[in-house]
Amino acid sequence: MPTVKLVDENDPNPIVQRVFRDIKETKKINWIPNIWRALATHPEHLELCWTRLKAIMRPGKVDALTKEIVALAVSATNGCNYCINSHTAAAMKLGLDVEGLGEVLAVVGLFNQMNKLADAYQVEPDILPHVR
Amino acid sequence: MPTVKLVDENDPNPIVQRVFRDIKETKKINWIPNIWRALATHPEHLELCWTRLKAIMRPGKVDALTKEIVALAVSATNGCNYCINSHTAAAMKLGLDVEGLGEVLAVVGLFNQMNKLADAYQVEPDILPHVR
Amino acid sequence: MPTVKLVDENDPNPIVQRVFRDIKETKKINWIPNIWRALATHPEHLELCWTRLKAIMRPGKVDALTKEIVALAVSATNGCNYCINSHTAAAMKLGLDVEGLGEVLAVVGLFNQMNKLADAYQVEPDILPHVR
Amino acid sequence: MPTVKLVDENDPNPIVQRVFRDIKETKKINWIPNIWRALATHPEHLELCWTRLKAIMRPGKVDALTKEIVALAVSATNGCNYCINSHTAAAMKLGLDVEGLGEVLAVVGLFNQMNKLADAYQVEPDILPHVR
Amino acid sequence: MPTVKLVDENDPNPIVQRVFRDIKETKKINWIPNIWRALATHPEHLELCWTRLKAIMRPGKVDALTKEIVALAVSATNGCNYCINSHTAAAMKLGLDVEGLGEVLAVVGLFNQMNKLADAYQVEPDILPHVR
Amino acid sequence: MPTVKLVDENDPNPIVQRVFRDIKETKKINWIPNIWRALATHPEHLELCWTRLKAIMRPGKVDALTKEIVALAVSATNGCNYCINSHTAAAMKLGLDVEGLGEVLAVVGLFNQMNKLADAYQVEPDILPHVR
Repeated sequence: MPTVKLVDENDPNPIVQRVFRDIKETKKINWIPNIWRALATHPEHLELCWTRLKAIMRPGKVDALTKEIVALAVSATNGCNYCINSHTAAAMKLGLDVEGLGEVLAVVGLFNQMNKLADAYQVEPDILPHVR
Repeated sequence: MPTVKLVDENDPNPIVQRVFRDIKETKKINWIPNIWRALATHPEHLELCWTRLKAIMRPGKVDALTKEIVALAVSATNGCNYCINSHTAAAMKLGLDVEGLGEVLAVVGLFNQMNKLADAYQVEPDILPHVR
Repeated sequence: MPTVKLVDENDPNPIVQRVFRDIKETKKINWIPNIWRALATHPEHLELCWTRLKAIMRPGKVDALTKEIVALAVSATNGCNYCINSHTAAAMKLGLDVEGLGEVLAVVGLFNQMNKLADAYQVEPDILPHVR
Repeated sequence: MPTVKLVDENDPNPIVQRVFRDIKETKKINWIPNIWRALATHPEHLELCWTRLKAIMRPGKVDALTKEIVALAVSATNGCNYCINSHTAAAMKLGLDVEGLGEVLAVVGLFNQMNKLADAYQVEPDILPHVR
Repeated sequence: MPTVKLVDENDPNPIVQRVFRDIKETKKINWIPNIWRALATHPEHLELCWTRLKAIMRPGKVDALTKEIVALAVSATNGCNYCINSHTAAAMKLGLDVEGLGEVLAVVGLFNQMNKLADAYQVEPDILPHVR
Repeated sequence: MPTVKLVDENDPNPIVQRVFRDIKETKKINWIPNIWRALATHPEHLELCWTRLKAIMRPGKVDALTKEIVALAVSATNGCNYCINSHTAAAMKLGLDVEGLGEVLAVVGLFNQMNKLADAYQVEPDILPHVR
């Protein structure tokens, strides 16, 4: 159960109204995901989070699907249930199928393992070949 | 400093020889990265790790660069220095430039933040719109 | 569901009785939070945990509310649901309101992001200005 | 060693110039911490990070020292060396002495322990007393 | 709720059939734990994970119970609910009782605390006595 | 570099003297590891940490080597360099050889992978067979 009362989708606060409207337009949905309704308990923070997320997730040198895959890899590594659910859904909406999801998660699992082995043996960074 | 003595590149153990040769051929390099020299202190484990990594990192539905980007996202989230170094180098070798790296890490930073906010407010997964 | 049977509040074990009584008196509550009932399955460990928590959480140079805020920041960073719930409740009981909670969690989110960016770029500690 | 070449403090990029000037004025320092020089390799991301950090760290319901203490608690929990160094220095500049630092870190250590015990026993959130 | 449809225990895919049969024989159970049914959505990855887990968990220099205890310590540190449940059950099946479990978790809690204190004070590794 | 000045081994503070003497006697060493010299900047916290560590690490139902192995598994999962170094050394002093270390770390790596896969697919705990 959330630790705060989720803000209503029709809350009259002008910052909340402006951000909620932009979320719906940008994501082409007609409802507000719970995370934004929780953040709206502090409207200035809601706006900071949303405007920054919108700027960072816009396709650039890296395309939208790859960005969602990165979001999922981070969320799975952190074990954040809410985020795993929403980024899995978002990546699949952008075209990742179950087999592709399996490949992405295989890489996530693999490097969570390899990271710990590198740490555990205290392996020092390689001197790159051209410097050797 | 590593907690074990790194195994020499010319170690006579037949498993180590076989894996080291395959690492050089697969990665088209003529030296052995430190992580594999540390893992070689337990040859059976070295072989399990390498054969599995080779199978998972092979391009499939997801291409090689995206897989390296996922590896980097996981390593940055875990704060593993060795792995951050090697996957940054590998992703750039596959074509990611400094601006693309900036985009990827912006997404990594963003969702490390959003993950913790979703956890902190104990936000429950959204019921997806088509079910509403 | 807990992995052990929670110990009853009236358990006859003398260590458990002594600790449970002290928890009620110290926290001015007339029931025992679940974490202590789980720890009571190993009475000596229960006592070690409780006496140490009591000593550390006592106001000193740092006041009680700030200590609860630190507890919440740690719990949110670790994504521990039980602890997020109890430390949010405790901080609010000590006077933090929803807007103050929003500010605290904004800082928590921000530095979970900045930590990963500093790690991801392998930024080295600054040489402090007076040494420059 | 950073994975990117740190941007020079006098870099001509107008976004970089604007942000670097604001960092110096806001923090009342005459040099640029390494993290901002690394982020400046992607000027738009630099600006997003800085303007958001500036807004969130401004004293509000929660004072500046408490915010630095939260930043330190998060950084210690994540084990981020760069951030631990800079937030320890910042908190001490704002008045935390070695004994106060000891108290803060005692709380950080304590709840990293308690978080894992609550997770390990799969303890469910308490039903708050007034509801019992 | 899982993000993929769990694969049926009688799925006709030959890799899935082979792995599921081996899981039942190796673990001496007549049902398939959920994690394997989820991984079976990508049969090649299922087989890689299972064959590697089977090889690593086989008693060697380190016995089966100690390996389960390590699995539990890792899972508790990562806060993975599914894994905490299954490794607690597995360790207890191999002979760990509630008091032994309390001892193991006490060590897990203790070093989650000590790890963060060592990081927080940026303590450098000791030069071992024989070198002093 | 530590963020505090390490306390001298001959510091006159009576709590520090008492704890340092007990550390030397208990561990049968004639020097003080850096972590305790850092914690001694807050003598009461030093004593709380040491007395609790001493109580928890004493062999009970679980022997001393297994406890060190758990400490290493936790430290590797958290990526704490200081702790990885000291617990690897301690476990090897108690009889773990390089091959045994390889086995332990293989289990650590494996479950860091499996934990993230279980989280990533949002796998729900198994209903245990006898309840089925």
